[in-house]
Amino acid sequence: MDRTTTATDGFQALDAETLGMRLEIVPAVARRVGSDSKAWTVREVGDGNLNLVFIVEGPKGSVVVKQALPYVRLVGESWPLPLKRSFFEYHALTRQEARAGAGTVPAIYHFDEAQALIVMEYLTPHVILRRALIAGRMPKKIGRDLGLFAARTLFRGSDLCMKAGDRKRDLALFADNVELCDITENLVFTDPYFEAPMNRHTSPQLDAVVAELRADRDLKVEAQRLKHIFAAKAETLLHGDLHTGSIMVTDDDTRIIDPEFAWYGPMAFDVGMMLANFWMSFFAQRGHEKDGDRKAMRDWLLDVTVEIWSVFRQEFAHLWRTERNGMLYARSLFEERGDTLGSEQALDGFLAELWTDLLGFAGVEIHRRILGLAHNADFETIEDLDLRADCERPALRFGRQLAVGRHGLHSIEEVNALARLIDAEHFA
Amino acid sequence: MDRTTTATDGFQALDAETLGMRLEIVPAVARRVGSDSKAWTVREVGDGNLNLVFIVEGPKGSVVVKQALPYVRLVGESWPLPLKRSFFEYHALTRQEARAGAGTVPAIYHFDEAQALIVMEYLTPHVILRRALIAGRMPKKIGRDLGLFAARTLFRGSDLCMKAGDRKRDLALFADNVELCDITENLVFTDPYFEAPMNRHTSPQLDAVVAELRADRDLKVEAQRLKHIFAAKAETLLHGDLHTGSIMVTDDDTRIIDPEFAWYGPMAFDVGMMLANFWMSFFAQRGHEKDGDRKAMRDWLLDVTVEIWSVFRQEFAHLWRTERNGMLYARSLFEERGDTLGSEQALDGFLAELWTDLLGFAGVEIHRRILGLAHNADFETIEDLDLRADCERPALRFGRQLAVGRHGLHSIEEVNALARLIDAEHFA
Repeated sequence: MDRTTTATDGFQALDAETLGMRLEIVPAVARRVGSDSKAWTVREVGDGNLNLVFIVEGPKGSVVVKQALPYVRLVGESWPLPLKRSFFEYHALTRQEARAGAGTVPAIYHFDEAQALIVMEYLTPHVILRRALIAGRMPKKIGRDLGLFAARTLFRGSDLCMKAGDRKRDLALFADNVELCDITENLVFTDPYFEAPMNRHTSPQLDAVVAELRADRDLKVEAQRLKHIFAAKAETLLHGDLHTGSIMVTDDDTRIIDPEFAWYGPMAFDVGMMLANFWMSFFAQRGHEKDGDRKAMRDWLLDVTVEIWSVFRQEFAHLWRTERNGMLYARSLFEERGDTLGSEQALDGFLAELWTDLLGFAGVEIHRRILGLAHNADFETIEDLDLRADCERPALRFGRQLAVGRHGLHSIEEVNALARLIDAEHFA
Repeated sequence: MDRTTTATDGFQALDAETLGMRLEIVPAVARRVGSDSKAWTVREVGDGNLNLVFIVEGPKGSVVVKQALPYVRLVGESWPLPLKRSFFEYHALTRQEARAGAGTVPAIYHFDEAQALIVMEYLTPHVILRRALIAGRMPKKIGRDLGLFAARTLFRGSDLCMKAGDRKRDLALFADNVELCDITENLVFTDPYFEAPMNRHTSPQLDAVVAELRADRDLKVEAQRLKHIFAAKAETLLHGDLHTGSIMVTDDDTRIIDPEFAWYGPMAFDVGMMLANFWMSFFAQRGHEKDGDRKAMRDWLLDVTVEIWSVFRQEFAHLWRTERNGMLYARSLFEERGDTLGSEQALDGFLAELWTDLLGFAGVEIHRRILGLAHNADFETIEDLDLRADCERPALRFGRQLAVGRHGLHSIEEVNALARLIDAEHFA
């Protein structure tokens, strides 16, 4: 059954000293950095919680080397995590590039499955989008770039577009990404809603609202329903972790990175997680006003959510009309019978369900970032804990309204009005 | 990627003459039939459209031998179909037996993957349920047996019960059953709704209503939405073809056979297809009244649908309360926090969605049996074509109401009242 490396036989973690020796013999690397590794500079930079990441610079150029470890880097060997996540990341990157176009993800130069190692383009002067947003920057292309990326990868990886057999084979391949799915399934949908051991929240400031959310029956049921959709709706190949920390930007370039959570799931999950991170940034801005108010930034963030969703819808509709060659919503029933309106009616229904579900996924994503294990820097970099809690509290309430009230929210403008209302009430 | 036999190297179709020689050397067969095949009687019986089936009787007992052919038996080599469907049938049978209990499927004695051959229990004096219903028989245990079988196999094959990793591995295994899924996807959800080459219907009697259905935009959109749910909602291991022709009965025994369409899909598909076949039998009974009216039989058929659904709900709820040890609707959020009502609320929501979807699947199942390639004997054995069409027409209208109006139908009693109303109007 195992189609990928799970054992760690022969695996050796890289370090800055030996990396050159090990990689100068790889032609794809030597060609880009230079053939003599003694002329290379190697810096370990880390990438978050899971992996080793090195920047390698030499006379001919530079690359990034990312290597999975057989455990979670930040926690250590007590939390094992299979090397094969690198295999899924590699395969997800190649599919995303094919579907969304070159220049939407880092270019891939080399993949070594046994060493769980990907050599890819060094993106510079890119920064992580989340950091840019905390700094109050407004990269002007992201709304459009993210809407297009999501529409193209999600549509083109689904039965709307692919041959049924190809999609089923690919589904089987990614079904093996069990451990990373398990992280999402538990850390996003379940752990935040009870006193799971690894949870934390800003305490004691949020204790009361946290207790209220964990006693909220409708919310718990809805979170589990969303988990059911996440686990069972194998609709398309997801990025699986599409938050603002998985996006690198300059003012005119946007790249999506780190798809090791890739998995066949519901389209709404990627879009919902992405929007949720902009809404969290909106709520967090009040904690970053040391150098002046962030009113314009907050307006801009909500405008970005409008642009993402509107570009997404537009591009998705365009692909629906021009590339719907898969088995779903067969042209033979609609366009080929002169019934274009039938196809449009189906599209509206498809997007309506996607919309309702994405609000739910956005709601639980906000909760898990404030109540669960994996917090995000938008709030965590607010040093004053009272102020941090003041930003987190309305975000939690907003998340609850999205998750439970999603069937009554019909447009992104309504959702943004809700965000403003909850925020304003809190700071009134 | 291929985990199962797709090539036909070494495959040899059985025939009645050589079967003995080939199978007497298999200990599991010799033990049950007798070790000298010269004392065996071998009869080829066929099983419908796809495979070879033999009954083998000898001094010690009898077995059934079912062998897949690399094409559709009824059509011939022009319609190839992979041998590996036998592999999926074997694995589905073993899982169903484990989940629903010994005696719910035929006992399996031997499986030869390369020869695509399953040796199993010879069920006698069982008959195909569909034939019994056409004959006006009322096997008294079927409502209960079918409700239990569906609840147990569907619940225990899902993330409500299984370990997430085990389910994902099994999902990957069955994802390879591409060709049989493709048959369902096209023959059930798409072909009936346009003039696909292999379609047929009772003509000219039904021409007008068929044209009306194929011009019905809401119906086409809903059929494709159901196809989307079928293809993307990988919720549990389905039987995949659970109609009354896949059920063998005596007055006190019920066995489910022929799960070669097994596939991870929505629970509602199996239940909906099963109920649809009882509803079709209800509409067809008027065509079988040569030896007296079938009023009691028709009442009984609707009672069976009530019993199937009520036993299903009861057993599903029982398993939800006692065996919900998978990752979905986690006990850690509900029972373990003293919130039993939360778990009940989630159960109600789960069953409500299952109900709404099963009505849709039932509606398209009825249509495809009257408009598509694979008709069923309930209607086909009515020789008078005007009478046959008189039975089919209200069934078609009923199917349309189920598929399009399913969100407004809240109980099985309402659905049965609808069936009676449409039938009565037609024969008024």
